[in-house]
Formats: sequence, structure tokens, C-alpha cells
Amino acid sequence: MNAETKIEPNVAVKTGTIYGVGLGPGAQDLMSVRADRLVRGARHLAYFRKAGRPGQARRIVEGMLRGDVTEFAMEYPVTTEISLADPRYNACLSEFYAACTQHLGTLARRGEDVVVLCEGDPFFYGSFMHLHARLSGMAAVEIVPGITGMSGAWTASGAPITWGDDVLTVLMATLPEADLARRIADTDALVVMKIGRNLAKLRRAVAAAGREHEAWLVEHAAMAEQRITPLVEAEAVTPYFSILLIHGKGRRP
Amino acid sequence: MNAETKIEPNVAVKTGTIYGVGLGPGAQDLMSVRADRLVRGARHLAYFRKAGRPGQARRIVEGMLRGDVTEFAMEYPVTTEISLADPRYNACLSEFYAACTQHLGTLARRGEDVVVLCEGDPFFYGSFMHLHARLSGMAAVEIVPGITGMSGAWTASGAPITWGDDVLTVLMATLPEADLARRIADTDALVVMKIGRNLAKLRRAVAAAGREHEAWLVEHAAMAEQRITPLVEAEAVTPYFSILLIHGKGRRP
Ligand SMILES: C[S@@+](CC[C@H](N)C(=O)[O-])C[C@H]1O[C@@H](n2cnc3c(N)ncnc32)[C@H](O)[C@@H]1O
Ligand SMILES: C[S@@+](CC[C@H](N)C(=O)[O-])C[C@H]1O[C@@H](n2cnc3c(N)ncnc32)[C@H](O)[C@@H]1O
Repeated sequence: MNAETKIEPNVAVKTGTIYGVGLGPGAQDLMSVRADRLVRGARHLAYFRKAGRPGQARRIVEGMLRGDVTEFAMEYPVTTEISLADPRYNACLSEFYAACTQHLGTLARRGEDVVVLCEGDPFFYGSFMHLHARLSGMAAVEIVPGITGMSGAWTASGAPITWGDDVLTVLMATLPEADLARRIADTDALVVMKIGRNLAKLRRAVAAAGREHEAWLVEHAAMAEQRITPLVEAEAVTPYFSILLIHGKGRRP
Repeated sequence: MNAETKIEPNVAVKTGTIYGVGLGPGAQDLMSVRADRLVRGARHLAYFRKAGRPGQARRIVEGMLRGDVTEFAMEYPVTTEISLADPRYNACLSEFYAACTQHLGTLARRGEDVVVLCEGDPFFYGSFMHLHARLSGMAAVEIVPGITGMSGAWTASGAPITWGDDVLTVLMATLPEADLARRIADTDALVVMKIGRNLAKLRRAVAAAGREHEAWLVEHAAMAEQRITPLVEAEAVTPYFSILLIHGKGRRP
């Protein structure tokens, strides 16, 4: 894309860049040096959060920001009364992402760079991807990869996740129970994310696969509240930032 | 473990710490802030490499080291004439890892901290894990997670690897062809590592799964020589630092 063709005639402003910046699992010093520089230098900062919450991405960068930073909190529409299967759910989210994209695109056209904070790695089950797809053609986008939440989780567990030629499967706990059980039985190493309200279903699936004594639950990896529990001892409720792990046992010379 | 009980009587030296430090996929500024500080401050540095090669981990930190650093290059024994299935292969590697562990343990007992450089994330198919298992009880070990090579690869590809509740499977190309084909057919998103001499086999497995037009080969992600090729256009030989990707197509509001 040629930036010059996008702006009003006679106004020689260079289009800004939208940075999707991976922050890593939680600890501030687990951000990359590149991310650290971008966050500290940002004049425009954007991040997703639930309405009324501070937001984990914003929390990670607390104390790092310029005094004159302009913040744009992208608050998810409240959709609890609409089911995931309802087409209105997708329509509602789609409208929200389009509005966020408009705002970022407008800043970029004015020549401003914007740093968008992303938990973990932006291209790994992230929300920024929905803006990324829409921004194409509107502004230059650069992605800074980050340490994933799952790397934070297996580091917290104190043991390697995979050895030799272990197979690793990454699943979302939102999948149907039978799919979970089949795939959990058919892998060496396992990571399950997005657990939340699906914990009871996930537990049944792990048990059906005969692996409940191998599974660990890691809550808030690399955050102050980090906690590791064998799945069999876990409570009924688990926070949003929770990951289930089964470690591989591959070849070890 | 109580460090004081491990040392000679009357010598009040605190046992050192062995740090397994993830360096990320290649670019120096994709190292975490924590890793950057440890590498720049290191008095003792250790890393694996093939005999006669500079080693990728050592290359990443070029220009960051103290003038008075002591380096310990752990050179893999040359095993090309022994097949992977031969028990002597494992015995030979096992001896090598034990010798490396002895050296690091001795430094730690003298009160020295040692930074061990690890490509990507140390607990994700890394070599340091073989020292980690052996060091337990000899010295304190701390792991610093890193951005994985696969995060570097999908960032280089310019597209998210997973969306919604996509299933991600991570495979080593060293697996048998039939296993590869079955698992490649049975996943949404795919990462294959350790390709090297297995490229021809991997290609046949991707074709058998009917997915050759979705697959990308990323060489040297986040390094100066980075290259992305559709699998169907790839050459017959691929470097050690190569990853095959198939992007997921999950729910996108
Ligand atoms: C929408 S996904 C975002 C993943 C993120 N892009 C990454 O690279 O880890 C949210 C899920 O990530 C997992 N997660 C991310 N960071 C975590 C952490 N520090 N501790 C535990 N779980 C985490 C949880 O399972 C959560 O439900
Ligand atoms: C022994 S594994 C080590 C993986 C590493 N611990 C990580 O977290 O990525 C080596 C394999 O990682 C992959 N790899 C690691 N870094 C890479 C990079 N920057 N570009 C391409 N492939 C990479 C290659 O497939 C290589 O064969």
C-alpha cells in the first residue's frame, strides 16, 4: 500500500503504524525488549477489556507509560444474554471490532502510531487478530510476537512440556466433551485453554481419557497470584487465566 | 535443598544458580527483558552447539556479553555413524549430558551463577531439559521462558495461527509417515518442527492428508535470512531452522 495515496491532497502526512504488541504471560520483565521499547514510547495506546474491569493487558504495563499517553480502552459489548450459537452474538462482536478498527484507522491516517496491547502472543488465539484482518489496506500493521500464556504455565509447573518427538495438542475447553476426550486420549502432551465455566466438562473428558492423574491446573501463570494444582485436587471454579497441562514423556537420553 | 549442606565445612559459599534462559526465535530484541539482563550480566555462559559450528544461541547474543565472561561451549558428540534406534546413540548422548551437568554443578558449588542459552523456550523441545533433570539436587535452577520458534514463524507468515476454538497440533517431522498423515488430516492448525532431512516424507504426509495447498514453510524465522515459501514451491532441502505451518480457519466474528 502506498501511504501517500490514502491522505487528503496537499497534506504530506505519513500514515502511522498500528503495532500489535505481545506482552507475554504476565510479569513485566517477560515482555520482549522490542515490546518494552514500544510500550514505553507509545503516544497512543489501545487495549481490550471487559466493561468495568481494569483489563489484564493494561495491568501488565502499569508504571511503564509516558505521562502524555492517550489511552483507548476497547470494551467488549456485554453479550451474556445472547448464546454463542445465536447469529446475533457474531453480529454484535463484528460491529464492535469494526468500530475499534475505524478508530485505529483514523489515528493512523492522521500519522499517529498506535500500540495495541495483546496478552501473550498476538497471533495465538488473540483478539487483536480480528482488528488485524480488518485493518489491512487501511494502515501498516506490525506484529511483535510474545511469550504465550502456555509457556508461562509449563515454566511455572517446573517441568518441560515436550521431549524428543512428543506430539503436543492445544485445545480450547469450549469444544464438545466427546471431542475433548478423544483428543486428550490421542496425544502425548496437552495444553487446554479457555477453561472458565467449562472446568466440569473438561474434568469429565480428562477422566474419560484415563489421564486425570497426569493433569495439572496452572492459574495466573507468571502473575503475582500464580497457583499450580493437580487437577484431582482443583476446586470447582477456575479463573479466566487458567491452563490445563499434561506433560509429555518422550525420549530422554 | 539446603545449599549450606552441600559445601565443604567452614567454607561459607552460597551455591550458585543455573539459569536456563530462553532467547526467543532469533532477533536480539525478541529476547525478554529478564533474559536480556541475565545475558548482559553473565560471568559464566554455557550453550550447546554442533562441533565446529558457532551455534545459533551464541550467535543471538553476539555483542551483548561482558568483557570478562567465561564461555563453556557444550559440543554435541558426533553421532552421524550411529542410528537413532541404536542403544549406543542414547548412551553416547547420556554421557555427554552427564559431563555437561558435572561442569555446571561444579561452578554452582563454587558459588558461581551460570547462564545457559536456550533457543526459543527452554521447556519446549529444548536440549537444556536434559541438564535440568540431572541438575536437580545439585544446584538451584531457574527457567526464563522465551518466545518459541513457532511464534516467530507464524508472525513471519503474516497471519494468525489459530482462531476461536481451532485445534492446534505440534508434530516433529521425525515421526513415521503414517502418523504424520493421520494427525495432519485430523487438526485445524498445524506446526511441524525438526524437518531437515525429513522434508520429502513430510511432503508426502501433507499430500496424503489432502492439505498441500494450505501449507507454508518458514525458514529462519526472525533471523536475517528469514524466508517464507508455499510448501508446493519449496526446494528439496530445508535448513535446520525450518517450520511448516497450516493456519486455522476458526470462528471470526
Ligand atoms: C483468548 S486466549 C489468549 C491467549 C494469548 N494470546 C496467549 O498467547 O497466551 C485466553 C486464554 O489464554 C490462557 N492464558 C493466557 N495467559 C495466561 C496466563 N498467564 N496464565 C494462565 N492462563 C493464561 C487462558 O487459558 C485464557 O483463557
Ligand atoms: C530442538 S527444537 C527447539 C525448539 C525451541 N526450544 C523453541 O522453543 O522453538 C529445534 C526446532 O525448532 C524449530 N525452530 C526453532 N527456532 C526456529 C526459527 N527461528 N525458525 C525456524 N524454525 C525454528 C526448528 O523446527 C528446529 O528444528
